[in-house]
Amino acid sequence: MRRMVMTILVENVAGVLSRVAGLFSRRGYNIDSLTVSETQNPKYSRMTVAVTGDEQILEQIKNQLNKLEDVKDIKELADTTSVHRELILVKIEAKAHERQSILAVCDIFRAKVVDVGQDTIMVEITGNQAKMEAFMKLMDDYNIVESVRTGITGLARGSEIL
Amino acid sequence: MRRMVMTILVENVAGVLSRVAGLFSRRGYNIDSLTVSETQNPKYSRMTVAVTGDEQILEQIKNQLNKLEDVKDIKELADTTSVHRELILVKIEAKAHERQSILAVCDIFRAKVVDVGQDTIMVEITGNQAKMEAFMKLMDDYNIVESVRTGITGLARGSEIL
Repeated sequence: MRRMVMTILVENVAGVLSRVAGLFSRRGYNIDSLTVSETQNPKYSRMTVAVTGDEQILEQIKNQLNKLEDVKDIKELADTTSVHRELILVKIEAKAHERQSILAVCDIFRAKVVDVGQDTIMVEITGNQAKMEAFMKLMDDYNIVESVRTGITGLARGSEIL
Repeated sequence: MRRMVMTILVENVAGVLSRVAGLFSRRGYNIDSLTVSETQNPKYSRMTVAVTGDEQILEQIKNQLNKLEDVKDIKELADTTSVHRELILVKIEAKAHERQSILAVCDIFRAKVVDVGQDTIMVEITGNQAKMEAFMKLMDDYNIVESVRTGITGLARGSEIL
């Protein structure tokens, strides 16, 4: 079992997301995270899929994705040769006297405060998975009201191109 | 026609993404962006969907999503009462003499350099849609090798909770 992050260039047409997601679910594979958005060229979208599974089955899925007509290109974004990033928004319960200590943790992780309510603070943090996990673990000491993650996105280092 | 950003709490099971995406594509609706990732509670995932369309049809889709068994809750994240954020990675061609001017633009937008190659720079930028568009427009003056966006994610301001 290993985790694979794939970047997939697809045609920007209705149904392509459903077809790609269907390929995983038909094998009972749950996607850890998925992001999809338009590229600079509005004809194409780019998906980043993180999935954990058996090496052989992941290879099979990759091959089957390649056969879909909407899929233009697909590549694995290996840890060592790529940049992986994720954005998380966390809303934390924060009475006036708790704010200081929350802000101190945010400072260390370069998390940005994006909203302050009467009893809550919302912060934005970006980074790789290890950083995100470390931050969320520290936030467990506080009362997390709600949080949302984009899931992983990434690009190959250097001049390599999909 | 308007753009709607929805946040959807779903059960973290294989096939749910395909079912949600299918609901949009069956009506010929193309999703502008979608992010999905686990929540603090691994039983649930949270999706953020941005879609542009006719008001009436968007309401219909919302109602139909609500009827899916995997969908636990769904809410619109209106511009005025929510924080919307997106992360973009951009790889730009940058010979030594071009670096300075690219870094100056990055500085203004608080974009972070995450990789430097022989002839390329990769930067990470986060913000709302207006900021992202302004940044990408300035980057058009350079040669963008490739870029990837997570798509929009968001949370309601204040102590409101899904």
